[in-house]
Amino acid sequence: MSQIRHALSVKRQDDFAKWYQEVIAAADLAEESGVRGCMVIKPWGYGIWERIQRLMDDRIKAAGVQNCYFPLFIPLANFTREAEHVEGFAKEMAVVTHHRLISDGKGGLMPDPAAKLEEPLVVRPTSETIIGDAMARWVQSWRDLPLLTNQWANVVRWEMRTRMFLRTSEFLWQEGHTAHENREQALEETHRALEMYRACAEEDLALPVIAGEKPENERFPGAVETWSIEAMMQDGKALQAGTSHYLGTNFAHAAGIQYQDREGSQQYCHTTSWGVSTRLIGGVIMTHGDDDGLRVPPAIAPQQIIIIPMLREAPEDAELLAYCEELRAMLATQTALGERLRVLLDKIPGKAAAKRWDWVRKGAPVILEVGPRDMAEGKVAMLRRDALWNAENGKPAMQFVTREDFAAQAGALLEEIQRSLFEEARVRRDANITRGVTQWQAVVDHFEKSGKYPGWVEVEWAKPTGAALEAVVEKLKAVKLTIRNVPREGEPATGTCIFTGEPAAERILIARAY
Amino acid sequence: MSQIRHALSVKRQDDFAKWYQEVIAAADLAEESGVRGCMVIKPWGYGIWERIQRLMDDRIKAAGVQNCYFPLFIPLANFTREAEHVEGFAKEMAVVTHHRLISDGKGGLMPDPAAKLEEPLVVRPTSETIIGDAMARWVQSWRDLPLLTNQWANVVRWEMRTRMFLRTSEFLWQEGHTAHENREQALEETHRALEMYRACAEEDLALPVIAGEKPENERFPGAVETWSIEAMMQDGKALQAGTSHYLGTNFAHAAGIQYQDREGSQQYCHTTSWGVSTRLIGGVIMTHGDDDGLRVPPAIAPQQIIIIPMLREAPEDAELLAYCEELRAMLATQTALGERLRVLLDKIPGKAAAKRWDWVRKGAPVILEVGPRDMAEGKVAMLRRDALWNAENGKPAMQFVTREDFAAQAGALLEEIQRSLFEEARVRRDANITRGVTQWQAVVDHFEKSGKYPGWVEVEWAKPTGAALEAVVEKLKAVKLTIRNVPREGEPATGTCIFTGEPAAERILIARAY
Repeated sequence: MSQIRHALSVKRQDDFAKWYQEVIAAADLAEESGVRGCMVIKPWGYGIWERIQRLMDDRIKAAGVQNCYFPLFIPLANFTREAEHVEGFAKEMAVVTHHRLISDGKGGLMPDPAAKLEEPLVVRPTSETIIGDAMARWVQSWRDLPLLTNQWANVVRWEMRTRMFLRTSEFLWQEGHTAHENREQALEETHRALEMYRACAEEDLALPVIAGEKPENERFPGAVETWSIEAMMQDGKALQAGTSHYLGTNFAHAAGIQYQDREGSQQYCHTTSWGVSTRLIGGVIMTHGDDDGLRVPPAIAPQQIIIIPMLREAPEDAELLAYCEELRAMLATQTALGERLRVLLDKIPGKAAAKRWDWVRKGAPVILEVGPRDMAEGKVAMLRRDALWNAENGKPAMQFVTREDFAAQAGALLEEIQRSLFEEARVRRDANITRGVTQWQAVVDHFEKSGKYPGWVEVEWAKPTGAALEAVVEKLKAVKLTIRNVPREGEPATGTCIFTGEPAAERILIARAY
Repeated sequence: MSQIRHALSVKRQDDFAKWYQEVIAAADLAEESGVRGCMVIKPWGYGIWERIQRLMDDRIKAAGVQNCYFPLFIPLANFTREAEHVEGFAKEMAVVTHHRLISDGKGGLMPDPAAKLEEPLVVRPTSETIIGDAMARWVQSWRDLPLLTNQWANVVRWEMRTRMFLRTSEFLWQEGHTAHENREQALEETHRALEMYRACAEEDLALPVIAGEKPENERFPGAVETWSIEAMMQDGKALQAGTSHYLGTNFAHAAGIQYQDREGSQQYCHTTSWGVSTRLIGGVIMTHGDDDGLRVPPAIAPQQIIIIPMLREAPEDAELLAYCEELRAMLATQTALGERLRVLLDKIPGKAAAKRWDWVRKGAPVILEVGPRDMAEGKVAMLRRDALWNAENGKPAMQFVTREDFAAQAGALLEEIQRSLFEEARVRRDANITRGVTQWQAVVDHFEKSGKYPGWVEVEWAKPTGAALEAVVEKLKAVKLTIRNVPREGEPATGTCIFTGEPAAERILIARAY
């Protein structure tokens, strides 16, 4: 058995950013495409996204939200209708100006000057304005409400500095857009979506998150309230993993989304929007990855159990393959986390030890190796990716179990791994939130002196607005900190504002962030 | 019971094009978006696409093809590398030239001249060239082959005249791209994909198709061979419903996709690509729609059985709803076509008769109405969308069956409807292919004199190439005809070429087409 340890060239604690890039390569998740800011998502990475999509889509449909598809291109004029929205997005959009190419006379191509668009089109950075146009057509009366739509789509935000999965010019996401009769119903939907994200993050991705409201300066452009789920990465930084916005009547006014109410008068709808993206995969990597590569929670693993037969290109291979195939068939009838097990019998030629480490780096939850001796004893050798090493002898913690026992317990094992990954992340997250800090200087000291991974700090503030808030944001920015959110389930404030000394209004989480 | 007949204002035989547009509106499938050439796909239409995706994706994965995601934007230079490819696509692409907007000083926005891209980016019309770049990185040795990838994506081809689902500037599709060691293996994959499309069209969409090779003039730009499946619409025109291309080493040379063969020398890969799009939904409409609206084959119906309780906003409603809910629960345990039944209990307020006709127009396969009297008798009133009218009395062919009998037979009923829709289309298609025509003038006469829906004509030809083929194409074009394909399972040629009088090489299908 190979004793390769530390499959990666760098450890998390030595260079987290480099480690992140290396896990993406080692797990074969994605790569740079050569097109500025755009990545290629490779089969194992896209398989994880397909799993996230499937589980989130089930949750979306269960809430009565219907999937639609809206245009990739948005006319320029749409962006000028909602003042804050254009302010927030106009600086980073891809603009289509021509619809034909011609020869440039030098063997290349150029946009055809004769095919210039009268009105340039923007490649959607988000779809509030174009979906608002549709809502204005679809909503006539209170009977048409609530209108609950969602789309799975690609969006483009021109980014100067990109990082795979976390910030790319093009990314994949879902965006929910809903219209309601009044503020209460729209807020209820905003929170329903937020809680759906929390459930998906925690139950499916095994990412413990804190749901809360963003401060005014972090609101989505044009939103009245923005809520988020925030996850703590292993370097202590925060990752905004999903957002849900209450848009008030701002976009309804801009697009003319009106309805006749029960009394017969015209009213503007209250709208919401909410989204999660391929960024979630970045969160999975930075939460569950270790110094040997990725660890994928079973619920979102494209394959949950890998069976590696130790083939020798000899006649005995056929019998060994049959033994493994029987196991695959036994497992195929089992379920875990409410679904059939996903099992791969890896028959690709190659050394079993090398293949094991490939699957370790990719983070398959359970890896089985089966050699002729195992077969003779009716057993399999099992490796749990979430408990890879034997602490006593420093070797892979291989367990030898009978094939039948393994098959009978496989579903429960995967559920145990799912729980264990969540618990590990939750315990780490909770241990790295510092509470009870009441002086600004203590916050600064905490992030400067508590080592590389200072985690998050919870403080109380007076919830300033306008210029006073700007001053706070600048103060934070000077030491590279941000306000993550006001935890929804946080304790009420009892002391004074850490920034102004006024009576505090609420508790906020302060952190470095992606 | 309402006696509304002909839910649409126009019949197929009176104005097929207008009827097509009206079905799309009446079934609430899609609508114009206001963005040139782009449509909004509404929930029922998108639900059909989701079903097609799911079934096709299962077939794709079963063939060992892995899903990936590649960039939306393609650098201009990629298009100049494959001469025929650029010739075929350069005329209809959306070009991104800027990455920022600024105020135009008149309250509007304009592309920022300071943010002009050094090299414009093309919004992908298809992804051979960008995926070729990735293949060049991924393939080193014969051990990496075959490389089997697919992506589900949006693509843009600037179209002057658009028609919903059939020809829109942006559309949704899947594109498979594979690389192989040699011609034989690549051709095998080309045909595997073609047969996969045939199976999906016939088994899932109930569209009978003829699979065959396209003539040289209809090849995909850069392909060595292009194969298609062709379906006959109810106006007799042909719809190309899917294509599969053998690309030879053309794209491999352009992108440098090389591998080291078993003997250690460098070889260029032979590649393929294959795709189907939201156009398939246009084919479903024009094949299965009737003068009352759409009819959706059960395999791709978002909901297969609609239960409409005849609610009266009275206390008895609760009992009726419970009776219907019990039926829904009974049906939820049944299967048809290998999947759980999809059943909707339509509780939305409104008159049952109006709701029934809404679902007739949408084409739900089975519509149940349940009133207090039905409940008292333990029955339901059932309407099969594929056999809507009683020919004797001109009334809806409502059948009264016990709730238990319906539940027990629902799966078989849906499978029967799936078969029946396919058979109806197949019989019509076969009846409208005219064979044995040996004179060109007879072909012209057939399409001019045999009424509105002349169907297709099968003739023999000498398979001309180059200028001789051009002459044939021009001759056909003058009377608005096209060659659809050379049927893969056609009889061998026995006579002379209808165009030149030379000995014939093969049989071709001639038709008007979308």
